[in-house]
Amino acid sequence: MTRTAVDTSDGWLEPDELSEARRRLPMVYVNGVPVRVDSAGAVQSIGLLLQSSADGEISRELVSGRVFYHERIRDALLRHIEKDLGPMALPQVPPSPQPFTVAEYFPTEGVSGYFDPRQHAVALAYILPVTGDFSPRQDALRLDWLTPDEAAGSAVQAEMASGQGLVLRQALAHLGFPPA
Amino acid sequence: MTRTAVDTSDGWLEPDELSEARRRLPMVYVNGVPVRVDSAGAVQSIGLLLQSSADGEISRELVSGRVFYHERIRDALLRHIEKDLGPMALPQVPPSPQPFTVAEYFPTEGVSGYFDPRQHAVALAYILPVTGDFSPRQDALRLDWLTPDEAAGSAVQAEMASGQGLVLRQALAHLGFPPA
Amino acid sequence: MTRTAVDTSDGWLEPDELSEARRRLPMVYVNGVPVRVDSAGAVQSIGLLLQSSADGEISRELVSGRVFYHERIRDALLRHIEKDLGPMALPQVPPSPQPFTVAEYFPTEGVSGYFDPRQHAVALAYILPVTGDFSPRQDALRLDWLTPDEAAGSAVQAEMASGQGLVLRQALAHLGFPPA
Amino acid sequence: MTRTAVDTSDGWLEPDELSEARRRLPMVYVNGVPVRVDSAGAVQSIGLLLQSSADGEISRELVSGRVFYHERIRDALLRHIEKDLGPMALPQVPPSPQPFTVAEYFPTEGVSGYFDPRQHAVALAYILPVTGDFSPRQDALRLDWLTPDEAAGSAVQAEMASGQGLVLRQALAHLGFPPA
Repeated sequence: MTRTAVDTSDGWLEPDELSEARRRLPMVYVNGVPVRVDSAGAVQSIGLLLQSSADGEISRELVSGRVFYHERIRDALLRHIEKDLGPMALPQVPPSPQPFTVAEYFPTEGVSGYFDPRQHAVALAYILPVTGDFSPRQDALRLDWLTPDEAAGSAVQAEMASGQGLVLRQALAHLGFPPA
Repeated sequence: MTRTAVDTSDGWLEPDELSEARRRLPMVYVNGVPVRVDSAGAVQSIGLLLQSSADGEISRELVSGRVFYHERIRDALLRHIEKDLGPMALPQVPPSPQPFTVAEYFPTEGVSGYFDPRQHAVALAYILPVTGDFSPRQDALRLDWLTPDEAAGSAVQAEMASGQGLVLRQALAHLGFPPA
Repeated sequence: MTRTAVDTSDGWLEPDELSEARRRLPMVYVNGVPVRVDSAGAVQSIGLLLQSSADGEISRELVSGRVFYHERIRDALLRHIEKDLGPMALPQVPPSPQPFTVAEYFPTEGVSGYFDPRQHAVALAYILPVTGDFSPRQDALRLDWLTPDEAAGSAVQAEMASGQGLVLRQALAHLGFPPA
Repeated sequence: MTRTAVDTSDGWLEPDELSEARRRLPMVYVNGVPVRVDSAGAVQSIGLLLQSSADGEISRELVSGRVFYHERIRDALLRHIEKDLGPMALPQVPPSPQPFTVAEYFPTEGVSGYFDPRQHAVALAYILPVTGDFSPRQDALRLDWLTPDEAAGSAVQAEMASGQGLVLRQALAHLGFPPA
């Protein structure tokens, strides 16, 4: 019987077991907002993945993903940023575990400002300064670097994947930028 | 020679000395966002003072003011909320000194998102749940309680006093609300 | 076939299914630090449950427990504080979802400062001002109210349940108290 | 009449005017905790300046100093870290203005856990990852890099300058380390 790397990281959790768990337990997630900063630490631009869904719809995404069994939050952030931005992104994972917000994605719309039809996910959200080179993941069309004003604009907000627009606006507010 | 209560609190700082200091030193301020919460702590409404300026212009304000010499931040918050909302507001000053943001008001526009023509003020911003009755201060027309959606709307934003609209949007984001 | 209320809250998760999930997925937890504050919001005392384990060992505990499927974090905090302190505790759940820290309890000692032999739990930690009357849960010997100095002392630290001593010290530091 | 760079930065504030203001107004300060982190952002060591006072007493210090008139907090942090650690420290000033704590230093002992006989200072405290080379300022004997355990130990605590020991312990707690 073969098992994938992902299964191993979760103590041998089969895909159908994972989808079963997703209907019964809240999943631990991380949301990362990639930023480029100047020499004084002030944010210059925000990185958003541009993705095309199965039905051809264009959407923008933060770095996001599940925390595995026995995985530290900072290792999950590193793993997802490497998956999404490539191995040379040189991210600066924050030294403190305190997130700037916690986003509660519910499978039912309207319970909170966040929505995920697949599951109930509790996502710890962090700002992630990156300094290196980027090679967006295969299913992403490209990685866009937007100014804070562009990122806060209604055009970008309308393209954000479900609920992540709110996390992006919260990130901008946390960084001191006016969300338009 | 007579001195007012304010002078005393500042170690006998004369009005002209204060205005002189305002051109030479950053002032320590607090910004408070009064909120009413439900039994689960979720914010139901945000309190904004409606004020008419000397030239008849209408503006909305947060609870805001200076920290005196030898005054604790939490005592300054209490003093300003009592001054603005009256003595029966029953505020819950946060137990931790960590503010949700620090607003840097500069006398020059464009240095930051905050602007105060009178001075350079560094304002520590806190959410202030209140549970009592309110008697707005004399120079305020009234105290309005707005829903988070109303508070985030562009109409209210346009009426906020200089720079406080950004603090209000940051407060809403910190509380998990979409700043529209 | 009968199901308990707990099962229902988790989308019909049987006890053996839960214990299975605990070996394969990180669990979402909340840690609450009950405090009593003065009129300026400054913490006067910290509430710790005194418990006797099956083998007669005495230990002290924070308010702690799992977040159910489709349950908001603030509702989980309310549920656990009611379970631990009784229905009249009148807790003030913080209006913002930002926790003061995230405690990562691993089933392996030494991965972090937190340890839980049963599971990998990711606990969002909050300060919980309470103002009412308290009736500690049945398996607790009593609820002790300690001064910040007492709570930070090595005697109390030695009695804290696995890993919760660190969360308590982090709470005291967040509140501005010297953890001795 | 000559003026130093410092005077200029404060709108021509003479030394005697500054010392006068210090007895009448709270001063805006920054406290920085220099840290070295591993590739996952976890703190490996904390940097403390070792200093010998005029009367030969040895003390340890954080990066600390005043915010000038019309100076951004992040520029004040850069200026003080360059003054204390040299121009090649390559600090990563946090992208968000939210400090991990606010330390209120009073000229009277016992008002808070912080004490500064010279003034009432309100210090915004930040973690400052540094990656470069260090040349401690002239009046410092050296810059020591301590493990979190060493930094939390009572020996180091006893050597910390007035009140900064508490900020250091709060920093360690914020970073997830047990303050001994």
